[in-house]
Amino acid sequence: MDRQIYLDNGATSWPKPREQFDKMVDLFMQIGVSPGRGSYDQAVSAQEYIRQAREKVAGFFGGPDPERVIFTANATDGLNLALLGTLAPGDHVVTTATEHNSVLRPLYHLQKTREISTSVVPFDGQGIIDPEDIKKTITPRTSLVAVNHASNVLGSVQPVAEIGEICAAHGIPLLVDASQSGGQIPVNMAKMQASALVFTGHKSLYGPTGIGGLLLGPDFTINSTRFGGTGLESKSLVHTQTFPHRLEAGTHNLMGIIGLSLAIDNLLQLGLERLHDKEINLAAKLYDGLDEISGIELYGGPITLHHVALFSANIPPMHPDDLGAILDADFNIAVRSGLHCAPLVHEILGTGGQGTIRFSLGRFNTEKEIDLVIKAMYRIARRN
Amino acid sequence: MDRQIYLDNGATSWPKPREQFDKMVDLFMQIGVSPGRGSYDQAVSAQEYIRQAREKVAGFFGGPDPERVIFTANATDGLNLALLGTLAPGDHVVTTATEHNSVLRPLYHLQKTREISTSVVPFDGQGIIDPEDIKKTITPRTSLVAVNHASNVLGSVQPVAEIGEICAAHGIPLLVDASQSGGQIPVNMAKMQASALVFTGHKSLYGPTGIGGLLLGPDFTINSTRFGGTGLESKSLVHTQTFPHRLEAGTHNLMGIIGLSLAIDNLLQLGLERLHDKEINLAAKLYDGLDEISGIELYGGPITLHHVALFSANIPPMHPDDLGAILDADFNIAVRSGLHCAPLVHEILGTGGQGTIRFSLGRFNTEKEIDLVIKAMYRIARRN
Repeated sequence: MDRQIYLDNGATSWPKPREQFDKMVDLFMQIGVSPGRGSYDQAVSAQEYIRQAREKVAGFFGGPDPERVIFTANATDGLNLALLGTLAPGDHVVTTATEHNSVLRPLYHLQKTREISTSVVPFDGQGIIDPEDIKKTITPRTSLVAVNHASNVLGSVQPVAEIGEICAAHGIPLLVDASQSGGQIPVNMAKMQASALVFTGHKSLYGPTGIGGLLLGPDFTINSTRFGGTGLESKSLVHTQTFPHRLEAGTHNLMGIIGLSLAIDNLLQLGLERLHDKEINLAAKLYDGLDEISGIELYGGPITLHHVALFSANIPPMHPDDLGAILDADFNIAVRSGLHCAPLVHEILGTGGQGTIRFSLGRFNTEKEIDLVIKAMYRIARRN
Repeated sequence: MDRQIYLDNGATSWPKPREQFDKMVDLFMQIGVSPGRGSYDQAVSAQEYIRQAREKVAGFFGGPDPERVIFTANATDGLNLALLGTLAPGDHVVTTATEHNSVLRPLYHLQKTREISTSVVPFDGQGIIDPEDIKKTITPRTSLVAVNHASNVLGSVQPVAEIGEICAAHGIPLLVDASQSGGQIPVNMAKMQASALVFTGHKSLYGPTGIGGLLLGPDFTINSTRFGGTGLESKSLVHTQTFPHRLEAGTHNLMGIIGLSLAIDNLLQLGLERLHDKEINLAAKLYDGLDEISGIELYGGPITLHHVALFSANIPPMHPDDLGAILDADFNIAVRSGLHCAPLVHEILGTGGQGTIRFSLGRFNTEKEIDLVIKAMYRIARRN
């Protein structure tokens, strides 16, 4: 069988750049000790490396303050930290139907345990939120607006700058989930007027798993959700309250931070826009090719530059799990099938029972692969 | 200057075995996708790898059930999960003066927010808890006993099996913090009758940072503390409640899990007891050598096989930070100074204001290095 065509980059980008990971190990071998807790050379180097990594991440995402770059285990960890750390009883949250369970489930938990309330605004036929819907949903009790920057099912990119403008006018912090957008399109907290932004290292940044982050603006009030050693004020039974320590506890994931930092270097060198142009062109070619085949339903397109390189499909009445299994078994094409952890998207699409298959492209996909995927989908649709 | 003598292995072991990390990258390049969310080859391999890693960890620590091996970002993360996930208003916790801030600070937070109460039992001149003290401190409201298996300041190892016996007799779950003991001495949940055990990958296991774990027994009642995607039951707004998913959310740190798994393989091949014998012999040689020098105060010894390879020291009235700085600057010896995130230990030692320096040994230390450290300490003590 032909070499695998990997189209699950929206879950985890693959393959990864080997050299970048070898360099990560090189550096970890040199400075891989506990940062900020010793005065010897590697401990100082490790601490300095982490300081620079915070600066790099802040620069990359337009964050206002490197000291408010919090390293987390993944985007879910960052979103939980932001939501559980900031919402208080009686608070009202405005969010969207494009959200991932990493936002919906913490909010639901807080509805049950802290009596917060949540309003969910819908998206249109292109998967886009109308900022006016958010504006109309804001109440005097609204303390947070949480928006998924790019849908992990549809690839649609929300008008976050307009949403940020509304939030700023109301004095309400905006939390942006940049899991899918980070590393693929320019993501700039300042331009969005976002007060909090969450990203992960293992998707379009092509970094390792186990590392992500939460960037905060000065107006985002947040409490510690984990407590432990910070290397500071060890005598106090209260967890250190200065940033970034307030939201980090225990030994840093230095290896992950090195991997993330090198991934950003690599991405900047390759050129984010150049990579995105290429991926979007391939995604558009795939979308347009599939759109001409009868029997295939597509969700999230058409694909423009204002999009991330993913969208969903079905060949009704086939179950998307079966479609995914056929693509894998008969054509060696790797996609994700199901709800993609975003159940509300499927309620609106009318695919709530079974979901979709998702094609998510990455920097290593080729034109030839896209031709093969279109052919495979054509053959499956014809025999369906 | 001579090559550095690294004696901060109690913080993070260093250097790391390079080959093991290269192999980690090899494997991550092959199967480094999102496990359990796709049907294609690498996703299945990744899921199977994680399943086997849970089995390996359960086997290594005598855990009763691989499905109740929860991967965490570090030991602090695991301890927070165990404490925040299980304690309810009105609960009483018995813990010890040897605990790290990763236990003390979450407990203090819960005292303030959930109105739990905490009793702290002291240790004796050798840094050992008397199980009878724990027995006497248990009340009808006691819902948890939390014990640091090996002190990160003194190196003393607690009689956890006797403590476990008392807990079992009272029907109270025992939580063991094996941060310092895991990988250095045999740690067996079943033999301890522990209901929960926390470890980290980056200390005596010689794995990467960013990965640790929490092992649970069937009697340990615990709620989710993080909420998000699990790849399962995506339609539900309630976080998946089956184990291990109940306590894990978002994309797994597959790279860290691979690194941890290979570290355990490597450790088992080298022989835990052989390594411990060597490290303890060196630690005892260091302790005994320093004990003969006037002006040096030692804490945590004498060093026996029932000990981990670390202890603390001071050269009064010198501040331990100054002593650490001199060892680094003049002798290229890397140690940790301060409270080591364990403030109550120093209250009992009488070193509460400033702490100690800590010598913590690892598998790469040598006899020659120990001779040099003794000489260095002699020179500093003499000129003090």
